[in-house]
Amino acid sequence: MTTIAILGATGYTALELIKILLRHPNAVITALTSREDTRSVGTVHPSLSGRLDLSLENLLPKEIANRSECVFSCLPHTASAKIVPELLSYGIKVIDLSADYRLDTAEIFETWYAEKHPDPDRLGKVPYGLPELFRNQIVGVNLVANPGCYPTSAILPLTPLIKTGFIEPSDIIIDSKSGVSGAGRKPKLSTLYPECNESISPYSVGTHRHTPEIEQIITTATGQKTTVIFTPHLTPMDRGILSTIYSKPLRPVVQNELLATLRHFYRNEPFVKIVEHLPSTKDVSGTNFVHITVRVVGNRIITVSAIDNLIKGASGAAVQNFNLMFNYPETTALI
Amino acid sequence: MTTIAILGATGYTALELIKILLRHPNAVITALTSREDTRSVGTVHPSLSGRLDLSLENLLPKEIANRSECVFSCLPHTASAKIVPELLSYGIKVIDLSADYRLDTAEIFETWYAEKHPDPDRLGKVPYGLPELFRNQIVGVNLVANPGCYPTSAILPLTPLIKTGFIEPSDIIIDSKSGVSGAGRKPKLSTLYPECNESISPYSVGTHRHTPEIEQIITTATGQKTTVIFTPHLTPMDRGILSTIYSKPLRPVVQNELLATLRHFYRNEPFVKIVEHLPSTKDVSGTNFVHITVRVVGNRIITVSAIDNLIKGASGAAVQNFNLMFNYPETTALI
Amino acid sequence: MTTIAILGATGYTALELIKILLRHPNAVITALTSREDTRSVGTVHPSLSGRLDLSLENLLPKEIANRSECVFSCLPHTASAKIVPELLSYGIKVIDLSADYRLDTAEIFETWYAEKHPDPDRLGKVPYGLPELFRNQIVGVNLVANPGCYPTSAILPLTPLIKTGFIEPSDIIIDSKSGVSGAGRKPKLSTLYPECNESISPYSVGTHRHTPEIEQIITTATGQKTTVIFTPHLTPMDRGILSTIYSKPLRPVVQNELLATLRHFYRNEPFVKIVEHLPSTKDVSGTNFVHITVRVVGNRIITVSAIDNLIKGASGAAVQNFNLMFNYPETTALI
Amino acid sequence: MTTIAILGATGYTALELIKILLRHPNAVITALTSREDTRSVGTVHPSLSGRLDLSLENLLPKEIANRSECVFSCLPHTASAKIVPELLSYGIKVIDLSADYRLDTAEIFETWYAEKHPDPDRLGKVPYGLPELFRNQIVGVNLVANPGCYPTSAILPLTPLIKTGFIEPSDIIIDSKSGVSGAGRKPKLSTLYPECNESISPYSVGTHRHTPEIEQIITTATGQKTTVIFTPHLTPMDRGILSTIYSKPLRPVVQNELLATLRHFYRNEPFVKIVEHLPSTKDVSGTNFVHITVRVVGNRIITVSAIDNLIKGASGAAVQNFNLMFNYPETTALI
Repeated sequence: MTTIAILGATGYTALELIKILLRHPNAVITALTSREDTRSVGTVHPSLSGRLDLSLENLLPKEIANRSECVFSCLPHTASAKIVPELLSYGIKVIDLSADYRLDTAEIFETWYAEKHPDPDRLGKVPYGLPELFRNQIVGVNLVANPGCYPTSAILPLTPLIKTGFIEPSDIIIDSKSGVSGAGRKPKLSTLYPECNESISPYSVGTHRHTPEIEQIITTATGQKTTVIFTPHLTPMDRGILSTIYSKPLRPVVQNELLATLRHFYRNEPFVKIVEHLPSTKDVSGTNFVHITVRVVGNRIITVSAIDNLIKGASGAAVQNFNLMFNYPETTALI
Repeated sequence: MTTIAILGATGYTALELIKILLRHPNAVITALTSREDTRSVGTVHPSLSGRLDLSLENLLPKEIANRSECVFSCLPHTASAKIVPELLSYGIKVIDLSADYRLDTAEIFETWYAEKHPDPDRLGKVPYGLPELFRNQIVGVNLVANPGCYPTSAILPLTPLIKTGFIEPSDIIIDSKSGVSGAGRKPKLSTLYPECNESISPYSVGTHRHTPEIEQIITTATGQKTTVIFTPHLTPMDRGILSTIYSKPLRPVVQNELLATLRHFYRNEPFVKIVEHLPSTKDVSGTNFVHITVRVVGNRIITVSAIDNLIKGASGAAVQNFNLMFNYPETTALI
Repeated sequence: MTTIAILGATGYTALELIKILLRHPNAVITALTSREDTRSVGTVHPSLSGRLDLSLENLLPKEIANRSECVFSCLPHTASAKIVPELLSYGIKVIDLSADYRLDTAEIFETWYAEKHPDPDRLGKVPYGLPELFRNQIVGVNLVANPGCYPTSAILPLTPLIKTGFIEPSDIIIDSKSGVSGAGRKPKLSTLYPECNESISPYSVGTHRHTPEIEQIITTATGQKTTVIFTPHLTPMDRGILSTIYSKPLRPVVQNELLATLRHFYRNEPFVKIVEHLPSTKDVSGTNFVHITVRVVGNRIITVSAIDNLIKGASGAAVQNFNLMFNYPETTALI
Repeated sequence: MTTIAILGATGYTALELIKILLRHPNAVITALTSREDTRSVGTVHPSLSGRLDLSLENLLPKEIANRSECVFSCLPHTASAKIVPELLSYGIKVIDLSADYRLDTAEIFETWYAEKHPDPDRLGKVPYGLPELFRNQIVGVNLVANPGCYPTSAILPLTPLIKTGFIEPSDIIIDSKSGVSGAGRKPKLSTLYPECNESISPYSVGTHRHTPEIEQIITTATGQKTTVIFTPHLTPMDRGILSTIYSKPLRPVVQNELLATLRHFYRNEPFVKIVEHLPSTKDVSGTNFVHITVRVVGNRIITVSAIDNLIKGASGAAVQNFNLMFNYPETTALI
């Protein structure tokens, strides 16, 4: 049994994490933190009423370490990297769901996040928690950078096709559609119900912080310098990301060849399903699965992927990493 | 042509009002106020891009009066009654969309709104702007209290049946379901998209401020002391109020008798449609219409009404009142 | 390990059932039937892609019995009771999710369902599968009538308060709001997306078939003749039932007394949570939990309950019954 | 006053058309047809209860001509072109909302629609009813091919930028997101509420029939052979189309240059708004407006457009064409 603390427990990511961990036979949640909120978790998240008898606490790293062997950090970027070094120093394992340890250099981080990185020396050494591509680096390790939601939806379909030389890696367009939960639980006008409902719109065109993450991870995973245009859209639904990805074939291809390549690449992966039909976000809602298909249209390869942004795009992946870090079966609590 | 100022122009009610007035052949909007926001109206409400060349301004009553012959106040309660007396003193006509002039006494106001009323002497003398019941009092008048959204949906179906002696007025249950726009445009957790979407819940059970308004207006309109239990629900949709109303017949009745009574009562009303089918909020969405039907089930009369909370429940009714106050045809810009 | 057949596997109830059973350590699905559809289950339900390697089959009762020890029937009413007797004759255990075995007499069935009952002699002898009230009758039994979704949401909050004498059992109004999945997966105009979205409306007012079920089960459970007025509403969401229930106290009561009674009654129930806040359907979405609260307003007790119509209102309850019938821990696969 | 018949009056397009025409001071609806439905229009479309006293009729072309001077055909493709020639022979003016007269040759029609064209000789001679590009051809004419919804959203932003030489016309990717009403009112599984809600998915990838329409009209309007990849997505909302369009600049450009070009091109158009912010479908919902913006990202120009698929994408455009054909002010009933 592993004792677990969740930092920043008021948001949607933490809520999903708690729900998954409550089903996990080898995990017990022993602390939930918040800088401001000290209410019971059932008050903060009414769906947990009567299911978990803990209140949120404003704890010091030392106190967290006294209570738990593993920390899931749902803190915002830079807040996470400010506390992670001390937690690691106590021998705690950490899964960081923020963006703090995903990028390889402080320079890129600071360019996109416009803040100084609090723990720059560790960058480039922390495994990126996408087990389908980096499992060996994750098993047993002490710190994992949990992937961003959009990156997961883009990296998984693109990597095999770039690696096997089907796709020109410098001319890729990723048109992504995300449910509103991806924008977090802090009240703001742009995610108010009557603003989002019955409406779809692009945002952060050309400036979204997941762009360098997608480029870096695919480049690392394939050995081919990859650049992308990434356009996220706010979609009137709670959850889900659908990415429709347009790329150029390096040579004439047909759909079946591409499907076969994807199937082979992910043949042993429990959470990746290569499907023939066009996927919907609903098909994977509430699960850790990724559905991927591919089409050839005119002079383009169109890959389509669907994930649940809060599960495979955040908390499900985090538990998948937890399982690998603690040598539990990888699918525990996730199927 | 009547010049118009809208006070508190950042919210949903003001937006609907502007859209209706832009179609009105006798109205021209000359001022939009906000205490804090000075952006162009097309920035505050992107749906108005290129349609109205005004910016929001923080104006004094005197300045408002210099620019307009009619004021629609979309200010919050008490803020409205603080400015209305001065506006009236300049000879301006005012339609107040807040709750400030709806209740008959400062005592009741202060009981339910927990604030001191800024203009208590005028209470009890301002016509309640439901033309279907109080048209004669509204024509040509200088100040109208625009009805609340829930009250409109409850008063219209109940009044004829109480007045004609079908319904016991002291034992009425109003179960109402409202779209989220009714909660306003100020960001708060309870109206965030991922909190409201895919969810319905009651709120303010036994404590909603529209309760005394419903009771007072029906009592006034029917001459029979009416008390109600009113339970509003937040429903995952932008707009619309459906009220399902349970009352006790004073004598055995059948559906057709009740339908005939309603049809006769509203036979000359352009916006009230007595229908045989069970109404949906969608049927009246974006319109100033009210759909009403009635059923007899067991020992209860069940009346059902549907309105658009922002139109017949707010801005459409306001323009209906404006038309009557300025002697324009009542349906102008509303059909 | 128990082998399981699901009859009528194309609908939403069957889909949820499959998802739950895939997590059940003691269940293995061995047959899925449909009279017309012979596609793979992953084609019929894309969310099951790669998760269950079965196709739908048109099987005879004998064939079903050869393949399974337990049958979940998701067939429509009367279709179920036509096949259940033969299945039972082979020693199979059956959980019937249709309405066929819920009512006590063929007469009542035929009044409300307007069809002749195919297996009238068994009526009145089949336990009603609400373990919170009838657990002892369910353990180890061969046939269970799985409750209707609306009845579950009404019976659970009302029974303790009627049984303990708080509520007048002959004057109860149940105003229920259900997500659209409750209307099934067969295409029809009334459940088309653009008809339901952004709209709420009542339906089957005074005529819904769950009315006699609610009355009979509460009467049985409390020993007090109960009659209700039941008004269902179609709500723009996938799942969830919220029931707002208005009843008359038999003596003066306060909220805490009622909450305490409910808490005591359900103190050992893993799936019933008595909460102080007003519940939302989202709080229980995707779970087998019921959230219940109560308020006293004027001369009425208002009880509010929230369930997931497809889980606690159908497939979750079915697995709860399965666990009891086969002596597995009752919460297996459900928490 | 012009008398109007609407053919195929049961669907969403006809409903919107009726709502707009009821506000039109120069139009009176005198006939509504359906091959099968003979109910009152208020029964078929409950939102029209008490607003239009007509029933649907199965009328011959001769009968239609006896009743009306103008016909809006909302019939399916090929059904429309079977009746249009006879209607024209009676001197009636026709706005055809089907795809029958949009494409220039029967060959292309038959390739994409897989049916023989019933009136091939007229193809290539019927004006395409996009007044912003083809106004001169529409004024006073007898037959107009009303544009498709997706094509409107793609042609308007692309045409000025291709015509002025900013965009390479052979390498364009159109990623469009449409509300569900675009799929029509005929019940089918794919547009059932619980299938579409909380889900986004692409469909008809590489095969959608609006592809040749977009290519042909832009080619005609710009004189430059245009080819596109067009990917539509079903989005969980009633209405709206958002098109995110990726194209290659023919020379280095900056955003302001492109915005200025678009503004100049549409400077006199009442319904086209070039905006700086990223548009949302909600901003134009229920209106005949188009909102367009543009960004330059990496080596791509990204144009974004938003329309209401049922208004500017169908019935609003149809009334705009009607106004031009009958010499009414173009914006009548549309602002």
